[in-house]
Amino acid sequence: MNRHVLGAKQFDRAQLESIMAAAQGMEQVARSGGSHLLTGKVMASLFFEPSTRTRFSFETAMTRLGGHVISTENASQFSSAIKGETLEDSIRVISSYADVIVMRHYEIGAAARAARISSVPILNAGDGAGEHPTQALLDLYTIQKELGSIDGISIAMVGDLTYGRTVHSLAYVLANFRDVTIWFTAPENTPIPQAVKDYLAEKGVRYHEDTDLRRVAGLVDVLYQTRVQRERFPSEEEYKKAAGKYIVDRELLDSMKQRSILMHPLPRAGEIATECDNDPRAAYFRQAENGVYVRMALLANAVGKGMTLVNNREMKDQLIG
Amino acid sequence: MNRHVLGAKQFDRAQLESIMAAAQGMEQVARSGGSHLLTGKVMASLFFEPSTRTRFSFETAMTRLGGHVISTENASQFSSAIKGETLEDSIRVISSYADVIVMRHYEIGAAARAARISSVPILNAGDGAGEHPTQALLDLYTIQKELGSIDGISIAMVGDLTYGRTVHSLAYVLANFRDVTIWFTAPENTPIPQAVKDYLAEKGVRYHEDTDLRRVAGLVDVLYQTRVQRERFPSEEEYKKAAGKYIVDRELLDSMKQRSILMHPLPRAGEIATECDNDPRAAYFRQAENGVYVRMALLANAVGKGMTLVNNREMKDQLIG
Amino acid sequence: MNRHVLGAKQFDRAQLESIMAAAQGMEQVARSGGSHLLTGKVMASLFFEPSTRTRFSFETAMTRLGGHVISTENASQFSSAIKGETLEDSIRVISSYADVIVMRHYEIGAAARAARISSVPILNAGDGAGEHPTQALLDLYTIQKELGSIDGISIAMVGDLTYGRTVHSLAYVLANFRDVTIWFTAPENTPIPQAVKDYLAEKGVRYHEDTDLRRVAGLVDVLYQTRVQRERFPSEEEYKKAAGKYIVDRELLDSMKQRSILMHPLPRAGEIATECDNDPRAAYFRQAENGVYVRMALLANAVGKGMTLVNNREMKDQLIG
Repeated sequence: MNRHVLGAKQFDRAQLESIMAAAQGMEQVARSGGSHLLTGKVMASLFFEPSTRTRFSFETAMTRLGGHVISTENASQFSSAIKGETLEDSIRVISSYADVIVMRHYEIGAAARAARISSVPILNAGDGAGEHPTQALLDLYTIQKELGSIDGISIAMVGDLTYGRTVHSLAYVLANFRDVTIWFTAPENTPIPQAVKDYLAEKGVRYHEDTDLRRVAGLVDVLYQTRVQRERFPSEEEYKKAAGKYIVDRELLDSMKQRSILMHPLPRAGEIATECDNDPRAAYFRQAENGVYVRMALLANAVGKGMTLVNNREMKDQLIG
Repeated sequence: MNRHVLGAKQFDRAQLESIMAAAQGMEQVARSGGSHLLTGKVMASLFFEPSTRTRFSFETAMTRLGGHVISTENASQFSSAIKGETLEDSIRVISSYADVIVMRHYEIGAAARAARISSVPILNAGDGAGEHPTQALLDLYTIQKELGSIDGISIAMVGDLTYGRTVHSLAYVLANFRDVTIWFTAPENTPIPQAVKDYLAEKGVRYHEDTDLRRVAGLVDVLYQTRVQRERFPSEEEYKKAAGKYIVDRELLDSMKQRSILMHPLPRAGEIATECDNDPRAAYFRQAENGVYVRMALLANAVGKGMTLVNNREMKDQLIG
Repeated sequence: MNRHVLGAKQFDRAQLESIMAAAQGMEQVARSGGSHLLTGKVMASLFFEPSTRTRFSFETAMTRLGGHVISTENASQFSSAIKGETLEDSIRVISSYADVIVMRHYEIGAAARAARISSVPILNAGDGAGEHPTQALLDLYTIQKELGSIDGISIAMVGDLTYGRTVHSLAYVLANFRDVTIWFTAPENTPIPQAVKDYLAEKGVRYHEDTDLRRVAGLVDVLYQTRVQRERFPSEEEYKKAAGKYIVDRELLDSMKQRSILMHPLPRAGEIATECDNDPRAAYFRQAENGVYVRMALLANAVGKGMTLVNNREMKDQLIG
């Protein structure tokens, strides 16, 4: 398997299943006290814009496997006006220090540029409005873990679907499974892009567009909520009208199937009412936790001896607990 | 023992003595090269405002026990206007990553709010003008280590006693010991709050208020100096007059008992003259060092197998050196 | 050997050779998966101004040896106007936490001030326009590794030689070797300082000043390029004229000897064209990588059991791989 993780389209079904199986194994590793698998290895957290949650998730994953972390949230100084360094030069240098680079950047394609020059694996932790592939992988793992299967599910993706990179990446990985139905539920001014629909059509994935969340909620196995962002609307008034229509509250949750789940990439800003948190269908905090296990699997693949070994005896021999 | 450390009032005498005994053991652990007790464990440093000294002290403590650290000094982005996340959501997520959270926040009560939601122990590293309980514990340990006993001591608390959370927390833990006398020595506009005096009265602790540092200095076993803060005074002139009266210099130090100590939570900004630093009574740098040992004890209790085990054979089996 | 590393002049030839031999050993250690030599040890990264590259290099070095790191890029808050702490107090406290302090500061002499008060070794990672001794050591190691010897080489130092601390430190360490010739090639308004020339004269090192890079390039074994800084010039026009004359491009590189190397402390901002990067003489990325090995050697010397042990059996016993 490619040791870079750059975009959600790079994975085929076999690879996705291998990652999910490895993540499941990693869950056991984490619960049993961690592993020495990556002892002596160094991960560089290279965040050109801060994202403490994502950074913490990757760094927890690395340390649970016994590895070390070097970390910055201010990587933009590398390429600051004063120092004037290119991303390529920064990556050349850091890839001579570390064994793997986790990179968040504000520009689309930055991770791919880094991968072209890097001598070590690049894990894309978000590149502008581009991709956030590890989020898609943890979303996928969450669905499988919660519902038992990905084949056959119907999922509503809700919120700003034009600019939300998370839903694009998730749609791409879902396209590898059978009999998936996607409902795109967005305010009229932030619909799902045509390019995503074309990709799904080509892959034979059924999708519908429906702006009415109340109608869609009862139909799906997964309601994937995201934010509606103020800056996409011409006026505060129009924003409030749209945002208000897309809030998941107790009443809406009650209209969902008994055996369904409510997901959210977090952070949320009111689009899921806290009164939903204790419902068993509220999966968003479990989803965040799953991110650690998926990233452990990706790091083991990138830095260690590959995914195929992750679940077997060598892994068990390295357990701390 | 409660694995959260939220405020100084939560401890009874037996617990305080247990912590101090554990800290003493940790001092040996640190000197002998550290321990593997917390190998595989992860501590999150979640600082909503920077405090490099306190953060370094906790992170040193965690690493001396073999644990790993994920760290931010910019945690306020979690709940920024843009991302809009509540403290509760941040804690829910991070407590699914880490085994213990060390938290500094600018709001009174933030640590208690975090503890209500967290699935892992919260160690309060300061919440606004509220509490700083681990500082009180290291202060207490320093007094015992330097003077051999806490029962029977007299202590002057000097400086801004209205807003200084450190002295409040220290007064609360001292109230668990016998025959303690406290002298509150503050400028008239920043006296010790009535609530602290009421607490001490209820616990039967003798206290006096006396604005004259020169008179008090010779009477006490411990002179606990803190800052007088400019912003509490109506004019620069009045600030200078007050601040000048509360400086500890060579002459004042010479008026102290031979077997007494001078403490300060640090950083200092001139309220102890550097000419005092080499006097054996100047305990403030030893006090800072003690913070590491006390925090090792608290982390072992929070993440490991409890305080009772800290001093015994299991700890010795884990030594690196 | 002195366990502080404060300035390039502190080293004699035997020490420099010992460091380079140790660095070579460390290269093997790093390639074979790291070592447990510094397990249980703590390095404090105390950066009063950010320098992610240098910080990452030191932190990688420490973790490759099994050590832990506590880190800040915002150390200036220690001595902020609000908290008002002196550098000396900060160092007293941190040296009671950590086993070694790596320090970057914006003031000349700050590292030496820290060393006077610190109870643990100080490694100077740059003090204002003063020194950057670990850069000089990695430069030296690179020359020896690339060319096989330092005795007898001729080297051109190019760019802003008045304010560039890197070239000063490198000149000082080169002065310990035999038959070295230095060409100082700078715009007329940023010449090499008289003090550096006096030092070289006293040590019997041959040097020349020549503003014409094209003439010098063909004569030397090492072309050490640095930046020409905009702020040193009275006008944008004069800056551009000067900077343009000192760019190394394909054509200039082709005029260099076949067995020579092109070095740069990085980051670069256009003064070496990227078209040079794939030439075997382009040594600047290998130079950056060497920094990790040299810093491993310095950390082992500072925190471990001294340089003499680094290459021998004890080191081998500690290997992870």
